[in-house]
Amino acid sequence: MRDVAIIGIKNTKFGEMWDNSFRDIFVEAGVGSLEDAGVSGEEIDGLYVGNMSGGQFVEQEHIGALIADYSGLAKNLHVPSTRVEAACASGGLALRQAIFGVASGYQDIVVAAGVEKMTDVSSSVASAALAAASDREWEGIMGATFPGLYAMIARMHMHMYGTTSEQMAEVAVKNHSYGLMNPISQYRKKITVEDVLSSIMVADPLHILDCSPITDGASSLVLAPADVAHKYTDTPVYIKASAQASDTISLHDRRDITTLDATVAAAKRAYEMANLGPSDIDVVELHDCFTIAEICAIEDLGFVEKGEGGRFTEDGETAIGGKVPVNTSGGLKSCGHPVGATGIKQAVEIVHQLRGEAGKRQVQRANTGLTHNVGGSGATAVVHILSRER
Amino acid sequence: MRDVAIIGIKNTKFGEMWDNSFRDIFVEAGVGSLEDAGVSGEEIDGLYVGNMSGGQFVEQEHIGALIADYSGLAKNLHVPSTRVEAACASGGLALRQAIFGVASGYQDIVVAAGVEKMTDVSSSVASAALAAASDREWEGIMGATFPGLYAMIARMHMHMYGTTSEQMAEVAVKNHSYGLMNPISQYRKKITVEDVLSSIMVADPLHILDCSPITDGASSLVLAPADVAHKYTDTPVYIKASAQASDTISLHDRRDITTLDATVAAAKRAYEMANLGPSDIDVVELHDCFTIAEICAIEDLGFVEKGEGGRFTEDGETAIGGKVPVNTSGGLKSCGHPVGATGIKQAVEIVHQLRGEAGKRQVQRANTGLTHNVGGSGATAVVHILSRER
Repeated sequence: MRDVAIIGIKNTKFGEMWDNSFRDIFVEAGVGSLEDAGVSGEEIDGLYVGNMSGGQFVEQEHIGALIADYSGLAKNLHVPSTRVEAACASGGLALRQAIFGVASGYQDIVVAAGVEKMTDVSSSVASAALAAASDREWEGIMGATFPGLYAMIARMHMHMYGTTSEQMAEVAVKNHSYGLMNPISQYRKKITVEDVLSSIMVADPLHILDCSPITDGASSLVLAPADVAHKYTDTPVYIKASAQASDTISLHDRRDITTLDATVAAAKRAYEMANLGPSDIDVVELHDCFTIAEICAIEDLGFVEKGEGGRFTEDGETAIGGKVPVNTSGGLKSCGHPVGATGIKQAVEIVHQLRGEAGKRQVQRANTGLTHNVGGSGATAVVHILSRER
Repeated sequence: MRDVAIIGIKNTKFGEMWDNSFRDIFVEAGVGSLEDAGVSGEEIDGLYVGNMSGGQFVEQEHIGALIADYSGLAKNLHVPSTRVEAACASGGLALRQAIFGVASGYQDIVVAAGVEKMTDVSSSVASAALAAASDREWEGIMGATFPGLYAMIARMHMHMYGTTSEQMAEVAVKNHSYGLMNPISQYRKKITVEDVLSSIMVADPLHILDCSPITDGASSLVLAPADVAHKYTDTPVYIKASAQASDTISLHDRRDITTLDATVAAAKRAYEMANLGPSDIDVVELHDCFTIAEICAIEDLGFVEKGEGGRFTEDGETAIGGKVPVNTSGGLKSCGHPVGATGIKQAVEIVHQLRGEAGKRQVQRANTGLTHNVGGSGATAVVHILSRER
């Protein structure tokens, strides 16, 4: 197994991009990451793209080939290009497949990208498309949407552990404070706990400011064998672990809906592979599709005991300067959540942090980071550990 | 790079399966392939599933997790499961990603499957869903469907090389004759050249009997490191090459629409990787979504000079007993074309042939086989070479 490094990164702006098409944004991200790496098209052996639902959002499947074509890599270079889908974890899995491509020796320089254009349809169409990430025959058909599913998780977490709406709101307040410092963020707006609690209720107990938004955006990474990474950059970031796990797609089949067993399993595998533990992680990008999801994730990733996530957040331990800074990009909540791109954007943010180029949101002495990307209500989880050290 | 072998196979019946759901068929294929390999669920490190458009056909994305769940591999085993999409080449790419998983050393025993349930929607909805494999902004939006696109290829091939409707019909006649011998086939019906020529015109010059059908079906393979394959089976089939290439998604951007440059590029890479040439191939499963596609493919794969595909077919050289037996499964034309499953089914048929268990359609002394799977009108092509010898 060959070691793999990240040598180039690029995010587009995240938000409602009515002046940019699906094609525009993936080309911007892809070409930007190649420029960042100093790599030419001729050097690329493969593309992997995370995209949840081009079919439903822009009536386009076959996204991999489309991207190769519009990036100028298809006609003469015939670069292989593969779309990977696992709902909101599509980006994380595209990164993982790209790692496999390089680790296997089949490919050397590869691009791992993610893209979603969600605002070209009405929000009801978008909600229906997103609901296709749940079990359509047991959840979707009953009218369950993701805010409803995560509201059940939140209600149970409150019941079992005394987690409060204020503690959940603190997640949003923190992530908005970092989103404000991130030039790509969809919502660059400071909010307070009171703002969250007084915002409209979407699915009790989740207010609209507990929810991540509908977003357009694309993100891209360039990967290379670790042995040649220094040819391209002075600051390669190494993949220390890539781990993925599945769980039941329906919430009602879980042993405990407050624990995402897929996250627990993926984290365990990742820590073992990297020979590291939660205390070795300096900065985290995790899947805060709803505020309760961040509270569950910091528990399931092992940063705090089960049930303590709300208090840990309230105590500022997930802020910069706390025990484990979480979602310095602004997270899905404030930076935005173009579902197929999110898993890649998380890695881009960790690379920014490990390179020391995160500006006002820089975590000091950040050496090792972790990304955590979830599909649906936790049927897929993928965890990557990245480090400045090989 | 670790060598990889196929140790288990299974196809469901292909056809209009109104008594079986999407979930039923992928479980039948997956479990069947594990039984064929003698592998238990606990041994599986990963699942890869090719599926073009669960979102549009059955309102379900997140297919990977769904499959892991309904196969009993999610709740306690948390087996990673990834959906791969490249239109009608989704199955071929799922096989390729599964190979990368094993070759990289990240995974040992993996399942590569493909599934599509296409008959739960009306044929107009199915046609629209399939058109999402073309360039929506240049082709789909103009009303171009795949029969229309391939009709243009056929018309140009006739113009440039004198290829005839009779020669194209011979492809259908041959493939139906083999489909008749394949117990899983959708159409087990002998047809004549006259039947094809007198069948309804879909897109001139393509009659309906020049076209592959809308199909439900699932196929599955089990892969293992070559070093341990004999632990599971006396007849492992080894992956000698896996190659993929992209081309422009729109037909009008190609230098020559009668040549699928992605097929040419993927075949070249595959032959180089296997250190073999076209004359070393004993049996072929290729992408005959339309009869003209088989004629182009035998040329692009190097079995015959460009422009000679019609005559080569007419002369019986692609029949069993000819120079290179093509589509002994019945091909997409007669066996059926559940788009996400097709690339996997092709490999299942080659394994049947190399194991010597293809019954009446057995090719004698079949030692090395090739599969060729195409997405859209040729924006993606993937070629695998399989052999009894490592």
